[in-house]
Amino acid sequence: MRKIAFCLALAIGATYVSHVLAREDDGNLMKQAQSQFKPIPDELPTIKGITVTPERVELGKWLYFDPRLSRSWLISCNTCHNLALGGVDLEETSIGHGWAKGPRNAPTVLNAVFNVAQFWDGRAEDLAAQAQGPVQAGVEMNNTPERVKQTLRSIPEYVQSFRKAFPDDSNPVTFENMAEAIETFEATLLTPGSKFDQYLKGDAQALTKAEKKGLKLFMDKGCSSCHNGINLGGGGYYPFGVVEKPGSEILPTEDKGRFAVTNTASDEYVFKVPSLRNIELTPPYFHSGEVWDLEQAVAIMGSSQLGVDLNDNETAAIVTFLKTLTGEQPKVEYPILPPHTKGTPLPVIEVSSDEKMGH
Amino acid sequence: MRKIAFCLALAIGATYVSHVLAREDDGNLMKQAQSQFKPIPDELPTIKGITVTPERVELGKWLYFDPRLSRSWLISCNTCHNLALGGVDLEETSIGHGWAKGPRNAPTVLNAVFNVAQFWDGRAEDLAAQAQGPVQAGVEMNNTPERVKQTLRSIPEYVQSFRKAFPDDSNPVTFENMAEAIETFEATLLTPGSKFDQYLKGDAQALTKAEKKGLKLFMDKGCSSCHNGINLGGGGYYPFGVVEKPGSEILPTEDKGRFAVTNTASDEYVFKVPSLRNIELTPPYFHSGEVWDLEQAVAIMGSSQLGVDLNDNETAAIVTFLKTLTGEQPKVEYPILPPHTKGTPLPVIEVSSDEKMGH
Repeated sequence: MRKIAFCLALAIGATYVSHVLAREDDGNLMKQAQSQFKPIPDELPTIKGITVTPERVELGKWLYFDPRLSRSWLISCNTCHNLALGGVDLEETSIGHGWAKGPRNAPTVLNAVFNVAQFWDGRAEDLAAQAQGPVQAGVEMNNTPERVKQTLRSIPEYVQSFRKAFPDDSNPVTFENMAEAIETFEATLLTPGSKFDQYLKGDAQALTKAEKKGLKLFMDKGCSSCHNGINLGGGGYYPFGVVEKPGSEILPTEDKGRFAVTNTASDEYVFKVPSLRNIELTPPYFHSGEVWDLEQAVAIMGSSQLGVDLNDNETAAIVTFLKTLTGEQPKVEYPILPPHTKGTPLPVIEVSSDEKMGH
Repeated sequence: MRKIAFCLALAIGATYVSHVLAREDDGNLMKQAQSQFKPIPDELPTIKGITVTPERVELGKWLYFDPRLSRSWLISCNTCHNLALGGVDLEETSIGHGWAKGPRNAPTVLNAVFNVAQFWDGRAEDLAAQAQGPVQAGVEMNNTPERVKQTLRSIPEYVQSFRKAFPDDSNPVTFENMAEAIETFEATLLTPGSKFDQYLKGDAQALTKAEKKGLKLFMDKGCSSCHNGINLGGGGYYPFGVVEKPGSEILPTEDKGRFAVTNTASDEYVFKVPSLRNIELTPPYFHSGEVWDLEQAVAIMGSSQLGVDLNDNETAAIVTFLKTLTGEQPKVEYPILPPHTKGTPLPVIEVSSDEKMGH
């Protein structure tokens, strides 16, 4: 009986404490946040078009780390989307075949499955469509679907692995299935458990006062009108420089963004809103990768997108909040890849003038 | 009682079978092999100069996979010594900063701790001395010790990790300790359990008849006079072309090997005997990396080193044996690297004419 009374007292006490804490938190802030954002789930939810099986994830992991998907055998998906480094390469724009400098900054692969589309201009509708791009791009992996197929078909363990991953296909080793397996692996690369997500799930104490101040500013100043949803971004397209165009070093005039996809005048300099998940890990910022400093990036966003001159305190507070978006990084065992055979096309390193032109 | 009798009968039977099998094996072959070779141990033995602690191995793993040790932030130890690919890059000669083509083929890191010295010319006495080379080489990682130190010291988690790995050092974050930590990690990269090692440990049935035929030829023809010991090589230096010099595409005239280290005429075109462990995984072959085919490599060795024209059957039999040297590849969890800070020197991609010259 005494035990029950004690437990009751404890329960009442706990309710009281959590009630006080919730009040201290200003319940409205949490409610406001919960109406605009969603936490990263611990496990991948069902997503239309993605069939997750252990066999497909494992095959996708092999492919993701295999530099033999590139013409040189030197560049894998992981080269530019390095899982050791927040899923990016930390370069202003990516470096590919022949040390060619690509035109845009590599977006992170982490949580990318939740983006409405892929690439800065959204030209790939999903990760499978995306994965086909860099393999073929002249300044990236510089390969061809035909050569990739020949490579994969020449390696018996790959053939077997494709059969297991795509058991219903009579001819499973295709360029499309390669991309689909990579998509499946990438879909598992989530970063749950961030401080912000703990807060969104109801733990008012997960954020400090300073972090909450930043969150409030983030919503009140209008950042969250574009950076919202599960990825705080990744959900739509907006012009870069909607109020005031930044300088051409940050917004290069030759890259007109989504205009190249839709050929619609109103899409000039329109880009997909990047996700802010793990943003502290993924400098430099913007599609041009010209800004290394997160404070500076926030300030530029204020003036160019919102027409607001954020003062240093406000910028710092927002950055303090943004750092709560760093989640648990996915841990993977580094794969042991199956050896090539005599039928495998050998690596080509030389950069001919043709190749320099890009495919 | 019946049970005991049955067990006894079984035990006697097993003894009889193993006895017959041993006879079938030609006990002399096993004894001859055991006198020339040693199996890779399951665990790293005590090695002078290498202090293995979990903290030092973990730090070494971070460093091994960290491309920020290179000037470009694109090249890590693992780029050329890829643990997914037998500890090599599968390139004729390695490609480094600015897509520069290095002068020699990258030797595997697997079991390299058992080599008498490192590099093809043995110019590094151990893996720690070796690790300092590529970080600084102009055509490899193109960095400087000063810049590497500045990088590591700017990252608090690295500083902490160095403190734990080198608890007796008052100033642990040094270029030398970086190399020592990498050496410690590399020393754990062993490949025990190969079929040949099971045979060496007394399991006469671990090799097939064809593999034993190859082993016998390997010893009888004289291959094992250089390729012996735990690594079937790695133990000494010999001239390439001791009987007959191969063509200059395989033995480029400008690379005089150990002569550059010792400046002794007799060391012209002298190289360290490469290990044959996991040899089927690590083409192309020779320091020039000009030969992709293992049969062809064996045939060239026969004529150039032994003055023997091996026929196709003999070459094939030796290759069949060599494939029994593939062991269990080390599995590692891919590290999550600590983020850089505002004090970290940023990556430099551009190749100036100075840099092209090499440091």
